Order: sequence, then C-alpha cells, then structure tokens
Amino acid sequence: MNLHPDYLLNKVNEPQDIKEMSLDELKQLANEIRTLVLERVSKIGGHVGPNLGVLELTVAYHYVFNSPHDKIVWDVSHQSYPHKMLTGRKLGFLDPDHYDDVTGYSSPAESNHDFFEIGHTSTSIALAVGLAHARDLVCPDSKDNIVAVIGDGSLSGGIAFEGLNNAAMLKSNLIIIVNDNEMSIDENKGGLYKGLKELRDTQGTSENNIFKFMGLDYRYVENGNDLQNMINVFKEVKDIDHPIVLHIHTEKGNGYAPAEENEMQYHWRSPFDLKTGKDKNEHPDEETYSDAVLEELDRQIEAGVPVVAMNAAIPGVFNLKKFQEKHPERYFDTGIAEQECISSAVAMASAGARPVVFQNSTFLQRAYDQLIHDMALNDAPVVMIVRNGTISSGSATHQGSFDISMISSLPNIEYLAPTNVEEMISMLRWAIKQTDQPVVIREPEKPLLHGEATQDDYSNIKYNIAHQGSEVAIMAVGDFWKLGQEVCTELKKKLNIDATLINPKSLTGIDADVLHHLAENHDVVVTLEDASLSGGFGETIDRYYGPTSMKVLNFGAPREFADNVPLDVLYEWYHLTPSQIVDDIEKVIHSI
Amino acid sequence: MNLHPDYLLNKVNEPQDIKEMSLDELKQLANEIRTLVLERVSKIGGHVGPNLGVLELTVAYHYVFNSPHDKIVWDVSHQSYPHKMLTGRKLGFLDPDHYDDVTGYSSPAESNHDFFEIGHTSTSIALAVGLAHARDLVCPDSKDNIVAVIGDGSLSGGIAFEGLNNAAMLKSNLIIIVNDNEMSIDENKGGLYKGLKELRDTQGTSENNIFKFMGLDYRYVENGNDLQNMINVFKEVKDIDHPIVLHIHTEKGNGYAPAEENEMQYHWRSPFDLKTGKDKNEHPDEETYSDAVLEELDRQIEAGVPVVAMNAAIPGVFNLKKFQEKHPERYFDTGIAEQECISSAVAMASAGARPVVFQNSTFLQRAYDQLIHDMALNDAPVVMIVRNGTISSGSATHQGSFDISMISSLPNIEYLAPTNVEEMISMLRWAIKQTDQPVVIREPEKPLLHGEATQDDYSNIKYNIAHQGSEVAIMAVGDFWKLGQEVCTELKKKLNIDATLINPKSLTGIDADVLHHLAENHDVVVTLEDASLSGGFGETIDRYYGPTSMKVLNFGAPREFADNVPLDVLYEWYHLTPSQIVDDIEKVIHSI
Repeated sequence: MNLHPDYLLNKVNEPQDIKEMSLDELKQLANEIRTLVLERVSKIGGHVGPNLGVLELTVAYHYVFNSPHDKIVWDVSHQSYPHKMLTGRKLGFLDPDHYDDVTGYSSPAESNHDFFEIGHTSTSIALAVGLAHARDLVCPDSKDNIVAVIGDGSLSGGIAFEGLNNAAMLKSNLIIIVNDNEMSIDENKGGLYKGLKELRDTQGTSENNIFKFMGLDYRYVENGNDLQNMINVFKEVKDIDHPIVLHIHTEKGNGYAPAEENEMQYHWRSPFDLKTGKDKNEHPDEETYSDAVLEELDRQIEAGVPVVAMNAAIPGVFNLKKFQEKHPERYFDTGIAEQECISSAVAMASAGARPVVFQNSTFLQRAYDQLIHDMALNDAPVVMIVRNGTISSGSATHQGSFDISMISSLPNIEYLAPTNVEEMISMLRWAIKQTDQPVVIREPEKPLLHGEATQDDYSNIKYNIAHQGSEVAIMAVGDFWKLGQEVCTELKKKLNIDATLINPKSLTGIDADVLHHLAENHDVVVTLEDASLSGGFGETIDRYYGPTSMKVLNFGAPREFADNVPLDVLYEWYHLTPSQIVDDIEKVIHSI
Repeated sequence: MNLHPDYLLNKVNEPQDIKEMSLDELKQLANEIRTLVLERVSKIGGHVGPNLGVLELTVAYHYVFNSPHDKIVWDVSHQSYPHKMLTGRKLGFLDPDHYDDVTGYSSPAESNHDFFEIGHTSTSIALAVGLAHARDLVCPDSKDNIVAVIGDGSLSGGIAFEGLNNAAMLKSNLIIIVNDNEMSIDENKGGLYKGLKELRDTQGTSENNIFKFMGLDYRYVENGNDLQNMINVFKEVKDIDHPIVLHIHTEKGNGYAPAEENEMQYHWRSPFDLKTGKDKNEHPDEETYSDAVLEELDRQIEAGVPVVAMNAAIPGVFNLKKFQEKHPERYFDTGIAEQECISSAVAMASAGARPVVFQNSTFLQRAYDQLIHDMALNDAPVVMIVRNGTISSGSATHQGSFDISMISSLPNIEYLAPTNVEEMISMLRWAIKQTDQPVVIREPEKPLLHGEATQDDYSNIKYNIAHQGSEVAIMAVGDFWKLGQEVCTELKKKLNIDATLINPKSLTGIDADVLHHLAENHDVVVTLEDASLSGGFGETIDRYYGPTSMKVLNFGAPREFADNVPLDVLYEWYHLTPSQIVDDIEKVIHSI
C-alpha cells in the first residue's frame, strides 16, 4: 500500500513532470524523497548517507537536464535512490509491497534513465568518457550532456584517476561532478583528500588544483545541498562544449541528524529504528569467524610476531576497527585502492612483516593483476582472508562466487577453505608461521560451526575423511560442509548408501593419495562448492579423474549472474538442495 | 668471451666498488654501460631508450646510496640494465656467452640488490610504500632509504596514483623518483602530462603541482642526465625523514642518436644493426593475423559501421598506428590505463558504437574487474582481440597463459579461438554485427594458417569435425590446431588409430550435441590448449563428461610460472610433443 498518497511525488512519472514545478514544490519533493529514503532503508536496509547527501543535486539535475537524452552516470550508484524516485520508480519507495521491485543500484533493466548496472566504485568517469566518445562518433550533431557523479571516496580508486586523465583529452561536452562530502565510506584516506580540503577551504581558488593540473576546466560549488544554488549551477554548465569538473561540497546524511552525526555508520545500514537510530537485528554477542581471526592476531602480536592487518576501505566487514583501536601502528587501510593494498602487502611480506589482508571476494577482483604479477609471481608470503566468496541472494553487482576460479588457477598460491572456526584458526596460524608462499583463507559465511583441525601444517594437504563409507564419496568444501553432511544423511535414507564424507581443506592442492584410493570402493565422487563451477574446485577433481573410470558430479553455481534472488530459490535452480543432489547422484548410479 | 676486458666495469662486483671512484671514472663507467646496453640489445633485443635514459641516475644512485640496505624499486624494471651491471651481473652484458644468465627485468633470484620480480607498470610506489611500512615496523631504528623509480608513462596507471595517495600518509623516509622523459612507450596520453610539462617549463616552480596537492614534498631536477648533478641531488635527499618526490627530467635514449630521435621505436627493440639502426629480422611483407583484423575493420568502416579501435598503450603489438593514420577519429589509446580502456569501451558499446579493444593477455589481467563488473555484468557488446594468450618462452612477468581461465569463467562473454585467419575474420565479422554480448577473440600466435570458416553465426557454437574417425577424438583449440593434426598423424602411425579431429571454436560455450554423440564410437577425448590447464578449456570438457564413462585427457600447461625457458624445452616438460601426447593416450587406452 502506498504509505503517502498525498505526496507530490505521486505526480512524477518522468523527470519531465518536475519541469513546471515551483522552487517550493521542488523543495517539498526533496523533503519527501528524504523521508522515503529513510523509510525504506530503516525497513529493509540500504545506503543512507550517500542518498541523503545528493537529494538537492538530483532534483536540480532532473529539473535542468533532459534525461535520458542527457545521461548521468552515478559512481557506485549507491546514491541513486532519489534519481530512481524521479524516473518512474517511486512506488519502490512509497509502497513497502513494491520495495523489492527496485534494486539498490542503477539498473538499465528497471529504467531507460539508467545506463549501466554498477556497484563497484570509481568507474563513472571512464564510463562517461566512453559515452561522450560514442556520442561524438555516432551522433556528431548531438548536444546531449554526459554527466558523471563521483564521490564518497571513489576518487581514490586508480581507475578514477585514469578517467580524469582521459577526460582531459576530450574536446566535447562532459560534466564531472565531484561530490565532495569530506568522507569516504570511512574517513578519507590519503593525500588526495588533503588537496581537496585546501580547495574547499579556499572556495576553489587555490592555485594548486589537481583537476586544473590535468588540464580540466574547474568550478567550485560551496553549498551542494542548496537546491536553488544547484539549479543555477547546472543551468550555467549545461551544454558546455568541453569537459569540466564541478567540485560540489555536500553533506553526507544531510537532513537526518543521526546520519549527519554518524556518517560512517549511516553509509550503509541494516534495518534500524527510525526514531532511535538503533539496529533492529543486532546480535552484538554472536561469535563470528572474523572475531576469531582478530583474537588470533592479538595472540600473535603478543607473541612478538610482526603481524599487520590491511584492508581497502572495508574495515566494517571484518570488524577491523577493533584491531585498529588496539594496534593503530599495525593497521593499514589504503582507502578504496585494492591494487595498492595487495602490492604493499607483497612488499611488507618480502621485508619481514607478516601482513594479513582482509578482502571481499568481489573487491579482490580489482587487484587480480596484483594477485598474479606481484603476489604469486614473487611467491610473497602474504596471508589473506577472503569473505563473501559464496553463492548469494545479494546484488549481481557484488557477486562474489568467482573467487575460486580467480585465485585457485594462479601459481604458488595456497587457497584454503576451512569448514569450522577451529580449523580456520589452525590454518591462519600456519599461514602466518610459514614464509614460503601466499596463503589465502576463505572465511565461511554460513552460521558458525565448531569442530577441530585435523592437521596443523598445511604445506601438504591431507584430505580429512570424516566418515569412511563406500560407493559414493562426498567432497564438501568450506561452508558447504553442512550441506555435505545433509547429503550423506539423505543418501542413507533414500538409497541406503553409506557415503564417504571428505573435507578437502584446499582449493588448490589435491591429496592424490586419497583420490587414488577412493577408486577402490567408490563409483561416484561428488563435489560441493559454494561458488561458481566454471574454473572451480570441482573441475580440478574432474581433471584428476578424467582418464579413469570414476564418475564425478559437480555441484555449485552455473556461469551466470543472479540478481537479488532469494537463496532458497537459487539453491533450487542450481540443484543444491540435499534431495536434488541425491536425485542427481541416483541417476548416475543407475547409469553405471 | 668478455668483449671488453679493458673496461673499468670489470672491477665492479658490488656497488661498494664504485664508492672510491672519481667523477671521471664514474663518467667512464656510464659510457661503458651505454655501449654495453646497445651491444646486448642489438644482438638479442631488449629495452633501449629506458636504460639509456637512466644511466647517470643509476650510477649516481649506487655511488650515493648503500644497496641493498637502501632499497630501490624500478617500475616495470625495464630500465634496470645499468643497475644490473653495477650489482654483480656485469658478465651478462660484457660477454655474449652469458647474455642468457641475466633477464630483462629485476629478479631477486639473480641478486640481493633486486627486491621483486617486476614486468608490469605502475606498481613501484605501492611496493615502496610497503617496504617503508615494513622497515618502520620490523626495524624501527633503521635509517635505510626506500626509493621508487617511476616513469615512461607508468604514472598514468591507476595504481601509481593509489601509491602516491598512500605515500602521502607515510611519516618516514621514502624517495619517489619521477623519471620524466616526456614520453610513455608511445607519446604520453592524457591530462597528467600537460601538468608535468608545466612543471618542467617552470623548473618545478608552478604553484599547480599534483604532488604538493597530495601533501608530498617535492623537488624538481632539470638535468637528470648530468652525473655530478644527480650525485649532488641524491646526497641532499639521502636519509630524508619523510616522503619526497624527485621530479627528474631525463632524455629517453640519451647518448645514442637513433634512440634519441626515434624514442618510440627504441623503447623496446628486436635485434638490430648498431651502425645503421636497422632491424635484423625484418619481415615487412609477412602477412599477420593483426593485419587481417585491421583490413576487416577498414571494410566495416567503409560499409558505415561505427567501429572504433581501442588499446592501452600497446599500438605496436597490433600494428595499430596504421589504423590511427587512416582513422584518427576512431582510434583511442588510453595510455597505460587498462581499466579505463575496458570501461570506456563498455560505455561506447552501450551507446551504439562498435568498439574493438586490442589487448595482451598479460595486461588484460589489470582490468579483470572491468571484465566482470562492467563488461560481463552489463552484457555490453564489446569486441576484443587478445594476443599472447599462449604458453611462451618469454619472461614469467608477462606470462599470458592464464587468459582462458580468466575470461571463460565469466558469465555472458563468448570467448572464441579461431584456428586460421579466415575463421578469425569470420568470427570478427559476427562479433561486430551482433549486439547481444561481449565477444573476445583469441588471436593465434603460431605461424599464420589459411583455412575456412565453417559457420558464420557463432551465437550457437557448432564444433567442426574436420575428420570423422573413431576410438579417440582430438579437440584442438586455436593455435594448437596444427598440433592436433600432428597428433592424429602420430596416432595413425604408432597405434593405427583413425582419430576424430575437432575444432571446438569456443572456449566458453560447448556443443553438447557433438560431445554426446562422440560417446557412440569413442573411448577417449583429448583436449589440446595453448594455455594453463587450471580453469581452462579442458576442464570444461572434463566436467561435461564427469558423470559418464568417457575418458578425458587434457594437455596444456601446469599451474606454474615459466621464466625464459625455450619453448621446445617447455613443451617437453609439459608433455606437449605429438609423440608424448600419443604415449599418454596409449596408456589410457591400455587401462580401458
């Protein structure tokens, strides 16, 4: 049900519908949008501060420019809620029954006012440059404006700089909005932000100006949360015939006191109470894999090991602020700069420190060359913890299920997949102790399991045969361990098969001895991995058994993106429920 | 035999050995090094200009600093020949019999004065920052200097900027030498170089200074090819207690007239005549796959298709200067900025242009997230030609054999592997014509073959059964087609087996129909791919046949780096000769 049938926004189906509005009406619209952002996010979670910060900018944009002829590219697009409300998707904010109709990021499938599906940072200038080139080539008479909006720390990512550098070569219209809210996800990291501050402090008049240095036209706009001001500025730069940087000073979380005061907390929030600002689903005492890792790092540091913790602007994912408070001199956040993070870790490892890098699977993609050319090639004993390498119900923009293919195909790296917290810590201890090679540990995502480590030196992987059976062997990787147990139970129940259950521990090395002996009394080997199958663990086992008569069945995700599909639905699609898996095994057994 | 037993360099076994030399002796040393760079490169090929440009800088560095306590990181390390000569590896330049002892890049395996194996650009600042952090943590009393040398266009790569941004946060010694020779590999691309020119033109006094903007100390040095000058400068900054940028103006190719005049040609050269400067192995009339691609682009443009050619600072690899001359408005070189190149291409494709991106396998690694998050996720109809995805005898730093794993594991992308030039052009035509998905074409590296295309619409891959036999089926991918033919011949000769020979064309899609019917009269399927096996094409076939009784054997490279190993030796190691392959097939047949 539409919670606000009285809102002016109900009249807005297209940006054209705001063109005739008065300033007061536009201001009212902005206020409504603010309420709707907060309402939706407090109920289902999402980005708060980034959206509140660009309310006025967005209303002004659609008032002045002509979308979709004029094209706006939102960096990360986590600030695109106001844009969505003005471009035909208001019901996804007005009506809780329609919240699921609208994703948290820009989406060409939703609207022709969105040009790309985006979720990672720093790409907007590169994309806008491409749009400008295409406009100039395909429609040389076109006067369409191309606008990129970049901010929230995105400028520190290397591709943003590559974008600026290339934008400067353009000889036609391009408007780069630097949305400067003095913040990244966390506080801003690095020298760049010192320079931006100097520009803010001098109202853009400082001679020292990185944008002008690169040959770009530049204009400073002090009050980016003033609607009339933004309308005036946009009117002045519209149809400009060359690239310009609009450096706009905004306030993250503007208009909602808790978000203004706790900018980091309100960057992205899980559901919360709108009045108190408190989380709805807080489990502060729940033990987590990440906390167990941090406790082990404390022990290592106490024992005198030169451990450091590194990350690229995602301390919240691993609770790293806790580490930073205790060990500020051992904590390095490179900002949104994943490449820098890995290369620096390689150098630190080579010079005697023991860097532990914390990374999301989806963001680690941004440092793939550093994994190969720096970490693997130099065989540097970096330790890395990777989260969210999993089949997930989240946004396709952040799909993390490519990690096994990405990492385990590279030389020299050992990629370990613990099945419980004790095993994870055992692997971490070994990873830090050894200095022979890079070791990456895949942090499980499913509810925390306890168990035991069955080896403490992982330089030679010994598969753990948790249960010795016959006919069918189940190799359950990492957080699919519990699924492996369930499949065994189901096999017994349905087919009366006493299956062997194996924890392979490693996604890279294989235990050829165990694989060889399995052939003695097994006909089928089944691999279960919480990841994409293409280039994954299962295929390594397929290759091993390729020349033999062993039948191998792989379970995991197909080569595709899944966008906001509930996990139980995805598992059904991918044949990942215990009963589906047993059905598939049964078919193979019958074919023998 | 040492060609120059009279050289002063013969007395230099360690940098310590030059500490007592007079300025005249050091100058003589620099002259000797120049001669030796030219002698070696003219005989076996290598980097010319980058090494000649830093002769004086290198001699001065080792005169003033104390390597390896003081640590220098050479960006790309293609300019490290003089450094190598002064750090115990002079024989690799004095004596042609020892040329092969010394690689073209920095190598910790060769010397403890080298700290990383490096071959890609733009990483040196990130690595140096890591070394500085480790020094401060592990040896807090250490006064060792950490020096990064970056230049030759490397500054345009995003990670260089991330490095500067993070260097600015350091509170201890770090010296960043910006080796500004006014050149990239090609001419410099982008706005950054406008700013650097302004700094050069004002002798570093311009108020607008990107380094100072980021909070870095800065010093301009005009004559970087003056030895005395460089010694003085280094003495002044040695043991500095904070990060500083030394912006040093040098001349690429300094001291060798042909290299000074043709900076691009002399960036890297294959063997040439030292007197005339002419190539020794020129085959200007030889037809190449790349030229065939460019001819097809000409035809497309003539027919009115909005084709553009894009690359990231490697026009020479694909002869793209020829394209640029004809179609300057359709040619985009982003400079060393692979991420920018892919993202911009995605935007151009989405806006109606038909971008064809030219990329090396090894450099494409640097845009892996753009392949996933921009190209694949947005299903953008970018066309890409990838070269050097191959098992090669080159440097491990540039190993390109990970491309199949890297690309074919991603959703939405079609990765095609033509076996001859006509098939390649047929694939290219289809790739440009369709607008449904990204298409990547793997340009063959082996001598050009002629043949025919057996389909012209590749939206559904139909394997080509070039010869229908029985018992054994050989699936020969791309430039291993000829190897497939040889294996068939050998199978007939040795085992009297009339093998089936298949061209699978695609590294992503499979022709399930052909695979299914193969089972009717074949026991063994053999895959041959010129790439790393881990995550490769063979494993896709392994997975397909996993639950069946078909035996599958995969041939390709193991998960390892190979550094400058002759190709015939590598093929022996990897069991890739026809007779080895037939032996391995025979073993499997006997086991049935």
